[in-house]
Amino acid sequence: MKLYTYFRSSAAYRVRIALNLKALDYDAIPVHLVRGGGEHLMDEYRAVNPSSLVPAFQDDALTLTQSMAIMEYLEDTYPLVPLLPKDAIGRARVRELAQIVACDIHPLNNLRVLNYLVKHLGQSEEAKTDWYRHWIIEGFRSLEAHLARNACTGSFCYGDSPTIADCYLVPQVFNAQRFNVDLTAYPTIARINSMCVDLPAFKAAHPSRQGDAE
Amino acid sequence: MKLYTYFRSSAAYRVRIALNLKALDYDAIPVHLVRGGGEHLMDEYRAVNPSSLVPAFQDDALTLTQSMAIMEYLEDTYPLVPLLPKDAIGRARVRELAQIVACDIHPLNNLRVLNYLVKHLGQSEEAKTDWYRHWIIEGFRSLEAHLARNACTGSFCYGDSPTIADCYLVPQVFNAQRFNVDLTAYPTIARINSMCVDLPAFKAAHPSRQGDAE
Repeated sequence: MKLYTYFRSSAAYRVRIALNLKALDYDAIPVHLVRGGGEHLMDEYRAVNPSSLVPAFQDDALTLTQSMAIMEYLEDTYPLVPLLPKDAIGRARVRELAQIVACDIHPLNNLRVLNYLVKHLGQSEEAKTDWYRHWIIEGFRSLEAHLARNACTGSFCYGDSPTIADCYLVPQVFNAQRFNVDLTAYPTIARINSMCVDLPAFKAAHPSRQGDAE
Repeated sequence: MKLYTYFRSSAAYRVRIALNLKALDYDAIPVHLVRGGGEHLMDEYRAVNPSSLVPAFQDDALTLTQSMAIMEYLEDTYPLVPLLPKDAIGRARVRELAQIVACDIHPLNNLRVLNYLVKHLGQSEEAKTDWYRHWIIEGFRSLEAHLARNACTGSFCYGDSPTIADCYLVPQVFNAQRFNVDLTAYPTIARINSMCVDLPAFKAAHPSRQGDAE
């Protein structure tokens, strides 16, 4: 198995956590998103992923992109350490939480979007940072409310062992902390994040622990 | 079953298609995203979905948000008309295509994002339209490349019957057409869309056919 990854990419970070939780060995192939104008934009990487985004995952002849699709594939093919509940309602719940991060927060703070704000809309660094924080705050308010009101929320996003939802939450909190978003207003998110970050699978996936970390 | 929906919401449109393909009856509860400052922002709807986004889905005691989570739940509980392939690689592929729309295109063109561009970043209507078209063009270039290179692409996004990927593609093409994006450069997307739009399940889900259509 190969994972095309960038140490600070939130989507790659999620997949690294899932691979580690399932104790799957993989080769990390770094794709630098900034150096030389971005290695992800080069023909060599476009041949792997025409979307020019990380991560991309390869398992024998299969090439797969999109973190959720990769994690669902891992769940289907390596079910030994399950990251989704057994029942349909539980699975739906975990997917819902993951998608709140995947669809409502992270896409707005992607590097290509931040670049557009500066290059095409003439926004300042300050306005860019406000934008970044705004969507995290909006998203965390919503995620916190979803977590706080649901009886299935446990030590982790769902129950008392990690699921795909936690693989999404932790990298998003990492991004929030990089941009000094105060987590006080999101006690459930903060509590679950603290629970996760000390686990070996999460630790080993941390951006600072990657071969391409700066 | 209840679906909180807005006729023009792309995410609600996806779920309407899936419900129709599976021939599931549901009550459509309209949530107007513009009138009166937005019914989705009122306490009454926040009690259903703290994210203040449509759609939300209810099945007995279950309330579920996020279109992908809802569709996966429908697939798990009403498998009679399958919208995902039987094999893990096929399922991963369909999810990948769906997520390209769900994560890389649609979130950037959400109403709340367009409002932010105008209200907080002082952008003109023209700059807002350019933004909207830019992310569709970027996303369609990528989706077209993914579809064109894969042997599993058939009359539909995957093989010769509709899947969840088609439920994502059609509403996104509808949005592209509303904003006059020329589809000539995306022949596979255009071909699949033409195949879908005449099917009864897709027709009945079309924004113009909803009770709250304007």
